[in-house]
Amino acid sequence: MADARLQRLQLEMEREATDLVALLPGANLTYLSGLSFHLMERPVVALIPRVGLPALVLPDLEAAKLTASRIPFIPFPYGEDETSRSGAFLAMVKRMKVGALKVAVEYRRMRVLELRLLEKAAPQMTTGEADPLLARLRMIKGPAESDAMREATRIAERAFEQTLPAIRPGVSELEIAAELTLQTLRSGSDSELPFAPIVASGPNAALPHALPGERRLQAGDLVIVDWGAAHRGYISDLTRTVAIGTVSDELILVYETVRRANQAGREASRPGATAGEVDAAARAVIVAAGYGERFIHRTGHGLGLEAHEEPFIREGSDVRLEPGMTYTVEPGIYLTGVGGVRIEDDVLITAGGAESLSVYPRELRVISG
Amino acid sequence: MADARLQRLQLEMEREATDLVALLPGANLTYLSGLSFHLMERPVVALIPRVGLPALVLPDLEAAKLTASRIPFIPFPYGEDETSRSGAFLAMVKRMKVGALKVAVEYRRMRVLELRLLEKAAPQMTTGEADPLLARLRMIKGPAESDAMREATRIAERAFEQTLPAIRPGVSELEIAAELTLQTLRSGSDSELPFAPIVASGPNAALPHALPGERRLQAGDLVIVDWGAAHRGYISDLTRTVAIGTVSDELILVYETVRRANQAGREASRPGATAGEVDAAARAVIVAAGYGERFIHRTGHGLGLEAHEEPFIREGSDVRLEPGMTYTVEPGIYLTGVGGVRIEDDVLITAGGAESLSVYPRELRVISG
Repeated sequence: MADARLQRLQLEMEREATDLVALLPGANLTYLSGLSFHLMERPVVALIPRVGLPALVLPDLEAAKLTASRIPFIPFPYGEDETSRSGAFLAMVKRMKVGALKVAVEYRRMRVLELRLLEKAAPQMTTGEADPLLARLRMIKGPAESDAMREATRIAERAFEQTLPAIRPGVSELEIAAELTLQTLRSGSDSELPFAPIVASGPNAALPHALPGERRLQAGDLVIVDWGAAHRGYISDLTRTVAIGTVSDELILVYETVRRANQAGREASRPGATAGEVDAAARAVIVAAGYGERFIHRTGHGLGLEAHEEPFIREGSDVRLEPGMTYTVEPGIYLTGVGGVRIEDDVLITAGGAESLSVYPRELRVISG
Repeated sequence: MADARLQRLQLEMEREATDLVALLPGANLTYLSGLSFHLMERPVVALIPRVGLPALVLPDLEAAKLTASRIPFIPFPYGEDETSRSGAFLAMVKRMKVGALKVAVEYRRMRVLELRLLEKAAPQMTTGEADPLLARLRMIKGPAESDAMREATRIAERAFEQTLPAIRPGVSELEIAAELTLQTLRSGSDSELPFAPIVASGPNAALPHALPGERRLQAGDLVIVDWGAAHRGYISDLTRTVAIGTVSDELILVYETVRRANQAGREASRPGATAGEVDAAARAVIVAAGYGERFIHRTGHGLGLEAHEEPFIREGSDVRLEPGMTYTVEPGIYLTGVGGVRIEDDVLITAGGAESLSVYPRELRVISG
C-alpha cells in the first residue's frame, strides 16, 4: 500500500470526494499497477476505493498476471460461462460496498459492456467521469517518464533517417509506411507501436488522418509522414513533410508558414503559459499568412502512455502548463485537392522553459525526382 | 442505397424490429461502409435507420474521408469546441427522429463517452445490444473475404518460417517478437498488424496471454509463438510451440496431447455441427490424457476483420456452423511454473466440410541447444 501512484490517486479521490474509481485495461490501469491487458470480449475491471485495497474482476486465464502487479488487488476471477462472470461482478461490487455510490468511470475507455455488467451487479450505483482525475496525475511526468519519451523520440528519428532512401518517386505510400514500421522496430521501439504511420502524398496530404494507400509518389508532391515509436510504454509522435522534385511556389510558401507556426508554438511553451496561448501563437502565424481556414485542427495534444492525452493544445484552453507536461506542437495547412503540410514536434515543459524532445531538422527536404 | 451489406443490415433490423443501430469506428462500421477511423477522443458515431439513409457525426477534420464511403451518409460534422460537438449530436438525433426509440449499440465498442453524448441529445432513448445482429452478418464470409484470410494466413506462415533462425538459446522473447513483427511486414502484411506477437518461453508459456519479456530461451524450454498477419483488413491468427534442446518427457506428452486435440477440433468442424461440438472434440482428447483442468480456455474464436469475433468455439455453444464461417482451433495445456503448449489453426467451414487455412507443420520442431 506504500505505492506512490496509488497514494496520489487516493489523495485526489479524497480531495474531490470520489468514493470509487473503475478502471479498464489501458493506460490508466497500466500507470497505476504496471499491468497490461488487452481490451477484448472478456471484461477486466478494477475498482479502486478512496481508502483500502483495490479489487479486480478478470478472466481466470489472466489471473496469473496479477503476480506482476505493483500494487495488490483483491482478485475476482471468472470462468468461461456468463454465470461465473456475473457472479464475479456481484462479489466484487458487494465486497467494495458499491451500493448507491457514485463510481467514477473512464468515459473514453469503459464500454457499454462493462457499464451494463456493473449496473446489473449494483443497480443503485451512479456514474461520474474519472478521466480528468487520472489525467491530472498522468499529465505531470517524472524524470523516468520523460527519459523514456526522449528515448522513444530518438528511436523515431533514427527510423525516419533510415527510411529516407525509400521515399522517392514511384514508391507507394503503403510501401513507405511498411518500411518506416520496419525501421522503427529495428531502431529499438517496443514491439507494440503507438499507431500505424501515416504517409500521405500529393492531394492525399490534404486529409490530416489519411491512411497510406496505393498512390505512388511523383514529382511535385508534398508528402506528410506522421509516425511514432514507443519505449517502455511511453511514446513519441512526430511529423515531417518532404518535397518530391519541384513543388509549386504556393506549396513552398505553405511549408514555410507551417514551419514558422511550429516554431512559434514551441517558443510559446513555458511554465505558466496556457495551452490556449501555445495554440494561439502557432495559429497566429497561419492566420497572418491567410491560411487560417486551412488549419483545421488544434495545435497539439498531450503525449505519454497514450498518443492522445491531456493537455490538449487547443483554442481557448486555460490549462496552465507546468514542468513535466509533454505534448505535441503540430500545426498544419490543408489545401483540398492540392496537398498539405504538417510539422510535428514533441515538447517537454521544464522549470526554465521547454525542451523539444524531437530535434530532427525542420527545413524543407527536397528529394530529387 | 443498393449496397448489399446495408440492405442485409436493414433487412435484419426489420426482422427483429430494431429501429436504429449506432456504430462506432471499428470492424462493424468498416464492414458496412469501408470507412476506417481511429477510436480516439473525438467521437464518431453512425446511426443506421431501418429504412433510409444513415447519418454520421464526425469531426470536421475527418469529413473529407466520407468521399471514400461505399454508402452515403448524411454528415453531421463538428469543430474543436464542445458546443459544436453537442450541436452535431443534437442535429443528428433530431434528423433521425431518435425520440424514445431503442437504439441498438455495440456493447463491445461504444464507450461511456458516446453513450452519454447520445443520451444527452435524446434523453428518452433506451439502448439494446447491436453486437449479435452485426455478428450474424459478419460471421458468414463471402469468397473475397475468405480469399483475403487465406492470403493473411500465407503471409503469417512465411513470416514464421523467416523468423525460425532467430529462435535459439540465448535470444530473448522480446527479440524474437520484434523479428517476427519485422518478418510479418516484410512478408506483405497490412501495416497495421492484428495484434502484437506473443512469445512465451519456459514457465512463461504457462500464461496464455503472456507478453514477451526479457527472458532468454534455454535448453529444456517449450516456446509458444502466437502471431498473425492482415491482408485487406482481414486477419490470420496462428500459434506454434517449439522445443529448445531436450525437453522433459512430460512436456513431450503434453505436446502430443495438444496436437491430437487440435486435430480433433479441426476434424469435428463441418456444416451442421455446433461450435460446442468442436470444443468438446478437442477437449475430450485433453481430458482423456488427464489434463482437463489445465486447458483453461475455450477451444477457439471467430476470425475476420477482428481477431476475436463470432462464432466462439466454447463449451456448450449451440451455434450451428455454416459454410463461410471462419474460426481458430487452439487447444492448450498450461502447467504453472513449468511450461505450456498451444497449437492454433484457422479453419473455414466449406459446403463439404472444413478447410484449414493454415497448413504450417504441427509436428514438434526441436531446435538444438
